[in-house]
Amino acid sequence: MKIIPYVRKAQFYETDQMGVIHHAHYIHWFEEARVDFLAQIGFPYERVESLGITFAVLGLSCEYKSPVRFGDTVHILVGLPSCGHSKMTIDYRVTDMSTGELRTTGETRHYFFRKEDARPVSLKKAIPELYDLFRSLSGV
Amino acid sequence: MKIIPYVRKAQFYETDQMGVIHHAHYIHWFEEARVDFLAQIGFPYERVESLGITFAVLGLSCEYKSPVRFGDTVHILVGLPSCGHSKMTIDYRVTDMSTGELRTTGETRHYFFRKEDARPVSLKKAIPELYDLFRSLSGV
Amino acid sequence: MKIIPYVRKAQFYETDQMGVIHHAHYIHWFEEARVDFLAQIGFPYERVESLGITFAVLGLSCEYKSPVRFGDTVHILVGLPSCGHSKMTIDYRVTDMSTGELRTTGETRHYFFRKEDARPVSLKKAIPELYDLFRSLSGV
Amino acid sequence: MKIIPYVRKAQFYETDQMGVIHHAHYIHWFEEARVDFLAQIGFPYERVESLGITFAVLGLSCEYKSPVRFGDTVHILVGLPSCGHSKMTIDYRVTDMSTGELRTTGETRHYFFRKEDARPVSLKKAIPELYDLFRSLSGV
Repeated sequence: MKIIPYVRKAQFYETDQMGVIHHAHYIHWFEEARVDFLAQIGFPYERVESLGITFAVLGLSCEYKSPVRFGDTVHILVGLPSCGHSKMTIDYRVTDMSTGELRTTGETRHYFFRKEDARPVSLKKAIPELYDLFRSLSGV
Repeated sequence: MKIIPYVRKAQFYETDQMGVIHHAHYIHWFEEARVDFLAQIGFPYERVESLGITFAVLGLSCEYKSPVRFGDTVHILVGLPSCGHSKMTIDYRVTDMSTGELRTTGETRHYFFRKEDARPVSLKKAIPELYDLFRSLSGV
Repeated sequence: MKIIPYVRKAQFYETDQMGVIHHAHYIHWFEEARVDFLAQIGFPYERVESLGITFAVLGLSCEYKSPVRFGDTVHILVGLPSCGHSKMTIDYRVTDMSTGELRTTGETRHYFFRKEDARPVSLKKAIPELYDLFRSLSGV
Repeated sequence: MKIIPYVRKAQFYETDQMGVIHHAHYIHWFEEARVDFLAQIGFPYERVESLGITFAVLGLSCEYKSPVRFGDTVHILVGLPSCGHSKMTIDYRVTDMSTGELRTTGETRHYFFRKEDARPVSLKKAIPELYDLFRSLSGV
């Protein structure tokens, strides 16, 4: 399965007084790219939720390589470095659409839980089809 | 009852590339001041909610008089120009704490509804004590 | 000139605990739609700035008709109710892309100023081509 | 020198549809706590800037231990695990003010640069007093 990078235009309201996109906004962009990624693989957020499961963020990291400015358009490539029964890691690579220059890399770590009682679950048991899909994409 | 202005420090992440607080953040500040106002009059948001009622925003307006910059501290004075059975208007006056200069004025319009079924309610019937309080503060 | 409505997907991080898009985010959406509108008419923000002129927000208003939820896609139609020498008003109409239902309407008021010294200018004198374009679009 | 934890009230507009503070907002809180920390040690952001130096964010990480909800007040304790000539690491520990429960930990990594030409500088050379202060606080 070929994942298409998420395309995002940097907005004026995302700039700060240094004239660049404020570092916190990349966390929003990662989320947008993640949501888009799930839709691309046929498991949009609503479908996962309708199966009674949701994701929580356990942690994240972000490395800022070069600034993005208002009006720039970036590509965000989502990858799955690892997926276990109950946890997974997603990574992100933000590049400038015109020049290909690397802007930011990042990672979010998630666990799966049941919406009904907020208890962690094994994705392998809860949605085996999605688990197998994540595994195949994570190249494990 | 004497309402104390809400004190807010303008944050770096609220600036934009013009070097001033981005205009959308004032809507957040109005909300903070409104929440603080409810707490000051003895009806913090949680108490209103525990009585089964909540507020929705019907509309708002904002006039920008002069910019606020990172590091500035502002005072936000909350007023109640009008309160009816089912709707109310709240207004805001943002001034610089050191100079007293006017920065922004604004208004939010709300209606009351029952949390249980999302139906609009008469605040006068639902929480008469709060209704009377709002009326006395609105100087109607 | 036919203006194409701006398309915006509502994001998870824009929701609040009521399960709907928080009312302050519409101000961001208006800005995105405004920037897109300027690009559509051939005067992207960077071009206006390169001509030494920029826009400031004098005021805004917003009316919330029905909620937008995470995953919804909206259309934002931008209009120019009025444009004078030194000030203009832009309005916005947010509708659900699938159902056409009205979600939000709003308005922002702007004035033009010179970047160089932050002084208000007559757009008619500063960028007559853009002034004429705004006038023709505003149907005045 | 005794650093007082930064006190922050979680706001309604910071919640998401899961009913908790959205994970991206902690990055804002870290920034607020960092700005407050600099003020506490006698080098508020404006003073550092007036000396021609500023900080850039190289990277960050955040671990989410338990959720914060609207109305909660947290303490954010700032520490300096390391400070070199040109880079420093700041860490953050967010706890609930009433219960002391750990909510979030995080880290931001910074380098120093000259405002004038955006070139990285040695803080030791640029502002030796601040460098010595950071070193003493970092317990190196």
